[in-house]
Amino acid sequence: MELKVRIWRQLLVVSLALNLGFVYRDYSNGKHKHDLSCENECKNSCSGFAERAVFEAKSSVSDDEIIDVDLGDPTMYEKYWQQMGGKTTVVIPGWRFMSYVSDVKNICFFLEPEFANAVVRLHKLVGNAVTQDRFIVVGTGSTQLIQAVLYATSPRNSSEPVSVVSAAPYYSAYPFFANYLKSGLYEWGGDARDFKGDGRYTEIVTSPNNPDGSLREAVVSSKQGGILIHDLAYYWPQYTSISSPADHDIMLFTVSKCTGHAGTRLGWALVKDKEIAKKMAEFMVINSAGVSKDSQIRGAKILQVVVDTHEHNRSSGSSTKLEVERNAFFEHSYNLMAKRWRLLSSAVNRGKIFSLPRFPAGKCAFSGRTFATQPAFAWVKCEGEIDDCERFLRENYKILSKGGKQFGDSPKYARISVMPRDHVFEQLVDRLSTIHSSL
Amino acid sequence: MELKVRIWRQLLVVSLALNLGFVYRDYSNGKHKHDLSCENECKNSCSGFAERAVFEAKSSVSDDEIIDVDLGDPTMYEKYWQQMGGKTTVVIPGWRFMSYVSDVKNICFFLEPEFANAVVRLHKLVGNAVTQDRFIVVGTGSTQLIQAVLYATSPRNSSEPVSVVSAAPYYSAYPFFANYLKSGLYEWGGDARDFKGDGRYTEIVTSPNNPDGSLREAVVSSKQGGILIHDLAYYWPQYTSISSPADHDIMLFTVSKCTGHAGTRLGWALVKDKEIAKKMAEFMVINSAGVSKDSQIRGAKILQVVVDTHEHNRSSGSSTKLEVERNAFFEHSYNLMAKRWRLLSSAVNRGKIFSLPRFPAGKCAFSGRTFATQPAFAWVKCEGEIDDCERFLRENYKILSKGGKQFGDSPKYARISVMPRDHVFEQLVDRLSTIHSSL
Repeated sequence: MELKVRIWRQLLVVSLALNLGFVYRDYSNGKHKHDLSCENECKNSCSGFAERAVFEAKSSVSDDEIIDVDLGDPTMYEKYWQQMGGKTTVVIPGWRFMSYVSDVKNICFFLEPEFANAVVRLHKLVGNAVTQDRFIVVGTGSTQLIQAVLYATSPRNSSEPVSVVSAAPYYSAYPFFANYLKSGLYEWGGDARDFKGDGRYTEIVTSPNNPDGSLREAVVSSKQGGILIHDLAYYWPQYTSISSPADHDIMLFTVSKCTGHAGTRLGWALVKDKEIAKKMAEFMVINSAGVSKDSQIRGAKILQVVVDTHEHNRSSGSSTKLEVERNAFFEHSYNLMAKRWRLLSSAVNRGKIFSLPRFPAGKCAFSGRTFATQPAFAWVKCEGEIDDCERFLRENYKILSKGGKQFGDSPKYARISVMPRDHVFEQLVDRLSTIHSSL
Repeated sequence: MELKVRIWRQLLVVSLALNLGFVYRDYSNGKHKHDLSCENECKNSCSGFAERAVFEAKSSVSDDEIIDVDLGDPTMYEKYWQQMGGKTTVVIPGWRFMSYVSDVKNICFFLEPEFANAVVRLHKLVGNAVTQDRFIVVGTGSTQLIQAVLYATSPRNSSEPVSVVSAAPYYSAYPFFANYLKSGLYEWGGDARDFKGDGRYTEIVTSPNNPDGSLREAVVSSKQGGILIHDLAYYWPQYTSISSPADHDIMLFTVSKCTGHAGTRLGWALVKDKEIAKKMAEFMVINSAGVSKDSQIRGAKILQVVVDTHEHNRSSGSSTKLEVERNAFFEHSYNLMAKRWRLLSSAVNRGKIFSLPRFPAGKCAFSGRTFATQPAFAWVKCEGEIDDCERFLRENYKILSKGGKQFGDSPKYARISVMPRDHVFEQLVDRLSTIHSSL
């Protein structure tokens, strides 16, 4: 009990600096309220999210407007899919997919076979994960899947909850997933590097990592071994070189960050152990009675088209380099990210106020290119005497980022999304490039 | 702590008789394993569900085959939607609905305005719920919404979890929702009629009730008052007469049982209190980062067509009675349920082995008809010396139902779904009608 009380007290402190990614900002008062902690129950998360979206929905950004690159809404992908026209349009007749059941032969009876096939085909194309002898569990985004893994791997009869840890800087939502229901099965244990417990633990390994883009391996060394969850949301060739197919026990992916379809709320897990896969499916049944068939049908279509755009280019010898770049999904998105990172780095490096992480170059087995990780987020460090980077960007330049504390790191860091729509990104780069000269 | 231990011990016993609706049956051994309890972690739920679905997917049922009417899969509605042809076909271009955000002005930023409008329009047509001055929270089915309410209404700082109760016979999934994560916020408290605690409680009022079809009001009388959740999944005019618009604090609905689109995983809550609505939306964000846009777009289309089928009939004076019955959704589904209940009652009443609940007739403000509830499930009681109705039906007649114990009631009861496809229902009636003569 003492330990529990200690953990909860600790949590109270930690949680003050964390949120799910939706920090409410009271601009009318010129204040920045960090009131989305777990303890004070994430007040205003909806309105905070909404306020930023008003901004994003515009088609241009004037010099004195707020630039919101806090949230990781992958709207930069919209343009590509518009260009692709009707190829990914999905048509669902009113009488289809009405039952709870999709595939009677599958452990995961609510998994649409079409979606499962598309997942396997995509991984085979990209070579980023082993699918053979794996069970596919579909989820309402990897958000729900992570919680399914926690449920599936935490023993019910244990007197102490499993500690859920991840090396800082970690994705700011993880502590929420672990704590919001005050589960007796698992609870947030903080930075994996500080984990010294003898008890059970689950380590979330995010690679490339959100927020800092680093390639990661598990860090906890424990005699009794723990559960590892590999969150591979960003292990796609537009973000990092694919060194080899990932071959872990539990791997999570999501269409949100692969193709940009965040609104479809669709993710999948590749799971080695049958019993864990079964229990994850069970979680999905109790949590939401399965996963939207409509999302799965749409997800299947989109992933199939992604593969088609590459296979078409490979099979059609007459395609010019330009055509390949324009049409093949991972070519297009790699080039877009490369361009954005060139612009962003150049703007940031103009002064000595900020620094960015450096990534080693690696050869990509998928594209044949050698390149350094170009992550979905920029993990900006304010150098010198600036102690609070998020605040510095917000108060002086009206740039909304997410502060380092929310990721369990120093406030000298801030996370900036590299995935907003073009006009937002352009204005971001313009504004960052002025910071040197104006100080 | 003593109370907690007592509750968990009690739960261990109760849970042995409960499952989420998916009981694994080992026919090769001729055994019926009730091993889907919360404590033994619902083993085999997927495979059990799947086995039954193989059966459902067939187009005919032979005399010696298993008839599975255990699960409430509303597949009887498929035929109507097939007849409606392309009217409810939904078309979603690849670049639409990609963002996490649907409506920046709404507390529930992930709620598609089109879906919200359709919900309001449907309730206005049917007159079954007040929508004015209510917040709409969308969920991945009412399954997720119930859990959102439990999260939203349970205080975080309380030393004891809130007791979640419902009058027996109650929907067999409720105990699972309350207990599967061993939440410190809430826990299953059993039959609402037995609740004598002084502590906080949340009562789920299901009306018409699953499994027994009764019309219900709250039963707990407590000085300090509790939270009431009205689960109105079956408060539609094909199942019961609509007496007046329901006007409760928290009302839950789902397309699964309204139009039969269970695979779309879509429900909605009408919530009076803004803070509760906000916290429910917050739950959706942490639990699944919102709700599938594709499901909402499809749901919107289907609900709009439902309303259109009625408004078209009202405005077109030339429609014959037959045309109205064929096309208007609630006319069609009322007639289908009325027909099924005539056949079922007649088959059951042929012998003296079974009895069915009797429902008082009420005038329906929507249709103008006076009729008794014709529920989605038949709550069959085995009379005389038959102690285990579920077992009796299964072992002697290969009819799979769900036993009364799972609903917190006597094993003399069994729940039978009245919503399977036509050929399954016909075979069910045939087989039930033989039971008298064969004993």
